Amino acid sequence: MDLKEKIRNIPNFPKPGIMFRDITPLLSCPDSFRESIKQLADHYRDQKIDAIAAAEARGFIFAAPLALELNAAFIPVRKPGKLPFDTNSFHYELEYGTDTLEIHTDAFSKGDKVLLVDDLLATGGTMNACVKLIEQSGAEVVSCAFALELSFLNGRDVLAPHDCFALMTYDDEN
Amino acid sequence: MDLKEKIRNIPNFPKPGIMFRDITPLLSCPDSFRESIKQLADHYRDQKIDAIAAAEARGFIFAAPLALELNAAFIPVRKPGKLPFDTNSFHYELEYGTDTLEIHTDAFSKGDKVLLVDDLLATGGTMNACVKLIEQSGAEVVSCAFALELSFLNGRDVLAPHDCFALMTYDDEN
Repeated sequence: MDLKEKIRNIPNFPKPGIMFRDITPLLSCPDSFRESIKQLADHYRDQKIDAIAAAEARGFIFAAPLALELNAAFIPVRKPGKLPFDTNSFHYELEYGTDTLEIHTDAFSKGDKVLLVDDLLATGGTMNACVKLIEQSGAEVVSCAFALELSFLNGRDVLAPHDCFALMTYDDEN
Repeated sequence: MDLKEKIRNIPNFPKPGIMFRDITPLLSCPDSFRESIKQLADHYRDQKIDAIAAAEARGFIFAAPLALELNAAFIPVRKPGKLPFDTNSFHYELEYGTDTLEIHTDAFSKGDKVLLVDDLLATGGTMNACVKLIEQSGAEVVSCAFALELSFLNGRDVLAPHDCFALMTYDDEN
């Protein structure tokens, strides 16, 4: 099954010159969505993952089924003010301005092996913030997994030396 | 398995007098999270659901695994500006101000049987907006499913005559 056939290319979104890779056709095809979760799970099945963490919102779509498939905890990473218990937070720079992500202080036990999940690896800024949050918590980031990677944006360099894995890779905007 | 044992009660969040029902302990226990998805799926397995739709962000956590379990399409309902293709939108009133939700115009085929999913039924405002969006699209809302229901807020009355189902019900703030 070629999962890329289920990705819709939408030019000039969210701004001119950007080709947006739309995952909604993949999500609306149960066979393709299931296959994507299976391929992610197969890649990590032997690594004794304790927890899957993901930032809202699209990250949750892949992370929740993957957590169940790998029999791991699902840990949500959220925007400020959303998590009700004590939180750790991490502030980071975006192209324009800054953003903050939060995680519950009791989300992990020390030494937990954590897999981070998101739908898309672009510049790696959001995922790098998640990595910092996990490491602040005393847990270990085993790898960062993505459905799609825009490899020409070099997000892997930002996340190095952490391992990255993507189901589908785009080498350029076309 | 008593799923309620995995819900953490946090007083005075997000404001004084509110008892917040925190689902993160349930999500971090794979057996409990899996059981909650199984109980939701069992309730709807005979109803030939074509699609599961859910609003960001916590709705995605239950809706994505449930879509796979029921072999149904997963359809994201999102805040404005997030969906890249043509969208329908619905504006609705909140306690303070208004909000808008969007869905892709090609998310459903006419007559699709749709199950709406969210983590929590409180006043029903967000879920009612989702119902309107689905019905604008020509699809049929079969039911609204929740992990938790705060029955004293009477969200079911707002959603009537649509069917509602919740795994766990809280009759008061305590």
